[in-house]
Amino acid sequence: MDILKGNLLYGQSGGPTSVINSSAYGVIKEAFLNKDYIEEVYCMKHGIQGALHEDFYVMSEQDEAQIELLRHTPGSAFGSVRYKIADANDDETDYIRLLYIFKKYNIRYFLYNGGNDSMDTCYKIAEYMREVDYDIRVVGVPKTIDNDLPFTDHTPGYGSAARFIANTMMEVSYDMYAYPKGKVTIVEIMGRHAGWLTAASHLASLSGWGPDLVYLPEVPFSIEKFKADIKKVYDEKSQCLIAVSEGIMNEEGIFFSSASAIKDAFGHFQLGGVSSKLAQIVNNEMRIGSRSIALGSTQRSAAHIQSLTDVNEAEQAGRKAVQFALAGDTEVMVTFERVSDSPYTIEFKKHPLNMIANQEKKMPRSMINESGNGITEEFIEYALPLIAGINEPKFINGVQSFSKFK
Amino acid sequence: MDILKGNLLYGQSGGPTSVINSSAYGVIKEAFLNKDYIEEVYCMKHGIQGALHEDFYVMSEQDEAQIELLRHTPGSAFGSVRYKIADANDDETDYIRLLYIFKKYNIRYFLYNGGNDSMDTCYKIAEYMREVDYDIRVVGVPKTIDNDLPFTDHTPGYGSAARFIANTMMEVSYDMYAYPKGKVTIVEIMGRHAGWLTAASHLASLSGWGPDLVYLPEVPFSIEKFKADIKKVYDEKSQCLIAVSEGIMNEEGIFFSSASAIKDAFGHFQLGGVSSKLAQIVNNEMRIGSRSIALGSTQRSAAHIQSLTDVNEAEQAGRKAVQFALAGDTEVMVTFERVSDSPYTIEFKKHPLNMIANQEKKMPRSMINESGNGITEEFIEYALPLIAGINEPKFINGVQSFSKFK
Repeated sequence: MDILKGNLLYGQSGGPTSVINSSAYGVIKEAFLNKDYIEEVYCMKHGIQGALHEDFYVMSEQDEAQIELLRHTPGSAFGSVRYKIADANDDETDYIRLLYIFKKYNIRYFLYNGGNDSMDTCYKIAEYMREVDYDIRVVGVPKTIDNDLPFTDHTPGYGSAARFIANTMMEVSYDMYAYPKGKVTIVEIMGRHAGWLTAASHLASLSGWGPDLVYLPEVPFSIEKFKADIKKVYDEKSQCLIAVSEGIMNEEGIFFSSASAIKDAFGHFQLGGVSSKLAQIVNNEMRIGSRSIALGSTQRSAAHIQSLTDVNEAEQAGRKAVQFALAGDTEVMVTFERVSDSPYTIEFKKHPLNMIANQEKKMPRSMINESGNGITEEFIEYALPLIAGINEPKFINGVQSFSKFK
Repeated sequence: MDILKGNLLYGQSGGPTSVINSSAYGVIKEAFLNKDYIEEVYCMKHGIQGALHEDFYVMSEQDEAQIELLRHTPGSAFGSVRYKIADANDDETDYIRLLYIFKKYNIRYFLYNGGNDSMDTCYKIAEYMREVDYDIRVVGVPKTIDNDLPFTDHTPGYGSAARFIANTMMEVSYDMYAYPKGKVTIVEIMGRHAGWLTAASHLASLSGWGPDLVYLPEVPFSIEKFKADIKKVYDEKSQCLIAVSEGIMNEEGIFFSSASAIKDAFGHFQLGGVSSKLAQIVNNEMRIGSRSIALGSTQRSAAHIQSLTDVNEAEQAGRKAVQFALAGDTEVMVTFERVSDSPYTIEFKKHPLNMIANQEKKMPRSMINESGNGITEEFIEYALPLIAGINEPKFINGVQSFSKFK
């Protein structure tokens, strides 16, 4: 072990998930176990913005109970941010500031928890510190409900969101069948450019109450085929339940939802409004009653139905990041390698950060049916272990308790 | 006890709730305990429509396991309907048909599970049977997530929906605070003309993560006041979380959502689309980023977070209905009388059906703050016992199991 003593700086970035705080828990607890090397854990307030403004939560000063609650707390307990750091070649300001802060606080371990964009930030910082010869170990902890990070079997956050979506879908389905003649019910699911999360709705089929049709960004979306698909189902069942990804696009790669044309700080289109637009088309052009449900941020924050597998893996990913850094690794992200489906086993690995930044992993075509409107058995085998187990929520008087730091 | 022997016909009507099947469970189990008087339990398929079409589930022929699952099954396991039965004076057809079916199946107990409209149906049938001298006992079992039935402290279905809404609200709130500068987040909640369900969002405040503003149908809605309220909160916090009822209306009693102008079979306006319209106003007129979440049918079907109190009371209401009918009562609905808040205790009572039909119980003004944009302590004391306890979901492989009958 290549010894490096100092402090650890941890940050959360990008869209919250219901288990990113379990990774924080893993980082903090593992660092506490290694006080000979890591004297203090600072958590950035609102990610890199907190680092730049010297705005930290100091972990040794927190109540133990609040740290323990992290395993049950959704969102981002330390605050997240969507701030795009400039290329150091274009503008060095942020990097000079970070270097100053790192030296001031003797930061020797920099752990950043996020998705594609955050790994980009993470890599840029690592690269700069390497070039100016500042001795620091930079490790990425993966996180995204979208499950679209490359070089890893899956990502923390996905399993819990998938569990919520599968269960919500079966509840909505059972509710729909209450009436003899139903509506076309269109449920809009997150996931950006990848269909993983929308596909999770299909897990409801295991109970007998899944969606009739599923539309993903991986298959070009045609409104004519969509209407024909609905007609076929509705003629037979007088009901039709549809799961649709916010990121569906046509043959030319244009988002169905792109009417809003709002971009975020990273230049990505903000998606949304797909289900209500589709419901209008079904109402107006097919003359069939239709309604839309957009789950919105509930799907990434539903702490009350977390997957225990996901929570445990998120914690382990945080612990592994600390272990890798202590062992001398830097400029890597923790990854998951699946050893077997049944019994489900994974191994933690690492992958160079520069190969991950800004890449997306889409669903393989073999997990989607031939017609492009449903999901195959291969996906079920892949996803089922990820939603397994209950992380019992901490209810007091019927409502949950979430961490609060000072 | 006034002895009447025969069969029992049970039906579900109106919007599903996550515990209406627990009432069905109570009815079926209690009837089974009284086989000397009730020989068979028939459950109507899609409510009164099933009765008119002789379309029943026969309970003695079902698997015990499926009956047991009723306590964990949302929606309407036997099917619901929104069918408005004519006045017998205007059109006797349905009643003649029902009388024929009742005689054919020797139906002597008619138990109907529903809200305002269903109690209207229930009363009309009872009245007709009394006038034609057919000996039958008709008892209503209350059910509605809207909690708007009169003469009862609360209704089964409300507590579970309230528990889901309170927990979802705190999750959405915590998620929102992830970012340093947030959006105005507007969550649309059901409840028709009463604010009970929307008020439940305020229970999230007990955890420290409640809505900043709450708008209910009980207080006339003004868009100018709405914008002023948001400005005040947003200027201070750079965030604003709003719970809004689908049924908000202006001084003249016109629904904010009435643009859709679609009426259901009972002549009620279909509500909805409020949050997205309000979010547009905030975006366009206030130039503040805003997003809307419409929980839709998830709030009435979220079996995975049922209130145990609600499930138990729903079952008891079903059992009481059978007991009342066996004891000779007819043309009554089971009601709840609160004896004390702490310890929470209720007594089951009954109330004449003809006084309940088509009436609505709104929230008292004392449960709403002076400004009309928030909830008072009095409501918390009222609602908190109703969301208490966990009815552990029956997960298999991460998804729930729901009843299926043959």
